[in-house]
Amino acid sequence: MSTASETAFLDALVEHGLLLATGVPGVYGRSGTFEDVLLAFDGLITRETKADGAEVVRFPPVLPRDHLETTGYMSSFPHLAGSVFSFSGGAAEALELGNRAARHEDWSEFQSATEVTLIPAACYPVYPWVSAAGALPKTGRLIDICCYCFRHEPSHDPARMQSFRQREHVRISTPEDVRAWHAGWVERGGALLSSVGLETGAVPANDPFFGRAGKMFAANQRDQGLKLERVYPIAGETPTAIMSINYHQDHFGLDFGITTAHGQVAHTACFGFGLERITLALFRTHGLDPLTWPDDVRRRLRLDQDA
Amino acid sequence: MSTASETAFLDALVEHGLLLATGVPGVYGRSGTFEDVLLAFDGLITRETKADGAEVVRFPPVLPRDHLETTGYMSSFPHLAGSVFSFSGGAAEALELGNRAARHEDWSEFQSATEVTLIPAACYPVYPWVSAAGALPKTGRLIDICCYCFRHEPSHDPARMQSFRQREHVRISTPEDVRAWHAGWVERGGALLSSVGLETGAVPANDPFFGRAGKMFAANQRDQGLKLERVYPIAGETPTAIMSINYHQDHFGLDFGITTAHGQVAHTACFGFGLERITLALFRTHGLDPLTWPDDVRRRLRLDQDA
Repeated sequence: MSTASETAFLDALVEHGLLLATGVPGVYGRSGTFEDVLLAFDGLITRETKADGAEVVRFPPVLPRDHLETTGYMSSFPHLAGSVFSFSGGAAEALELGNRAARHEDWSEFQSATEVTLIPAACYPVYPWVSAAGALPKTGRLIDICCYCFRHEPSHDPARMQSFRQREHVRISTPEDVRAWHAGWVERGGALLSSVGLETGAVPANDPFFGRAGKMFAANQRDQGLKLERVYPIAGETPTAIMSINYHQDHFGLDFGITTAHGQVAHTACFGFGLERITLALFRTHGLDPLTWPDDVRRRLRLDQDA
Repeated sequence: MSTASETAFLDALVEHGLLLATGVPGVYGRSGTFEDVLLAFDGLITRETKADGAEVVRFPPVLPRDHLETTGYMSSFPHLAGSVFSFSGGAAEALELGNRAARHEDWSEFQSATEVTLIPAACYPVYPWVSAAGALPKTGRLIDICCYCFRHEPSHDPARMQSFRQREHVRISTPEDVRAWHAGWVERGGALLSSVGLETGAVPANDPFFGRAGKMFAANQRDQGLKLERVYPIAGETPTAIMSINYHQDHFGLDFGITTAHGQVAHTACFGFGLERITLALFRTHGLDPLTWPDDVRRRLRLDQDA
């Protein structure tokens, strides 16, 4: 699941105290310095996109199970989803549960599904909310979101965390509007990353669909240019996506019944910056101590204004 | 689970767009305005405690299951814990899972426990991390944390969310140091809340221990003054805790083997501000539009510096 150079970079990050190991691969604490850099890049996105006038919304890390089901996520990515279980038994079961937990034995039989799952990608909570507001305004909507996402893929590659933040914009409008917005962000995203010293390539990509049928979906997604990623070598030799730009066509519009002002099914697209991955890429590129980073990068991130 | 006035306040918050309903009680999106106020109070805590020199650490919303088991949480609060499950089957199970999910039927039998749970209180990830660093320095440690916590208690009281943020400081040192720090924060916390117009009482409190045996734990905790809460009426007539100050004695020190510089079992204490509850209390007190709030409150929160 991870190469020698990935593990070596993880070790260096933990040794320098930037990531705190918890014993579970892909689940780390972040030092204050790590968090300062992450929030600095997040702030840069805010400043650079202010004129776009996106509506800001923030969601907690959990999502109604019903909404995830509606998107078909459990068919496409069952291996990545995290669902939230809890206890609803009585005194006798609670006693047995507590005893087993104290002995670090299996207590999963005393857990049952709740109404929520973990959010797999920041934009998922947006669609049912936009749908509930009725038909779109004429110019559609643009939503700014950021939340902790979860994907169950334990790995010693620090760039493949199980719990991480995505900062996204979601465009919801007519096919023409959405296609134009999507195309624009391929270049805009590259320029934003380049401005902090991360020179990325834009490559056609696909989501990690499950199983044999998934291979067909993935090929189709690539062939149609629906997903582009800005990739950068973070921990290993192979470049990793640090930004993705996705055109969903009418997928979410149909799932949630979102319609344009003229009653068409709305199209949607989103871009997502992987905030932990970008933070790691900055440490990889400029060194593990932000005080020694190039002046222009520090100024751009306003890291020179701290303290 | 909620009174008429609680539901009425929730309705007002949703109608004004400050909270976004998702269909699951206690799970809401936050508007940009809500988030600005929450982060403004979070920033006030940072400024007011800067001189304390706490080490800043941030954790994602998930915690190794093993750590939660070690604290005895599953015996004390089995009804509140959220555990993360996922899928690890093959193609046939995936197909059935996807089909059931698409029909909104039960697919929980295809889920099994992962190595993580949701974090129930912000300080839980701190203890195993501090323990792993070896004996404490002479003056102990002071840690600054903030994360999304989860408690499975669906309610229409907006002050009782399932997913919410706690901002905490954790003091880990000798019994004397920890007791002095704990006592100091009862007044300091009250002054901080009062400075934004929230006049709170400090009341002896207890954690919501499960079952009949739990009643004894709760009474004991109250009698010994181990938990104090700063309470304020948010949504209903009954005041709700918006800050808690907890002295754990040697509980976490023993659980995780944390020792002082002299080899004693370390004592621990923490304070926690409930960021969503404080934000709600501010809206309740000063009105649903922060632009109309008293000048001194806006200045104190630096809301006057926006835009």
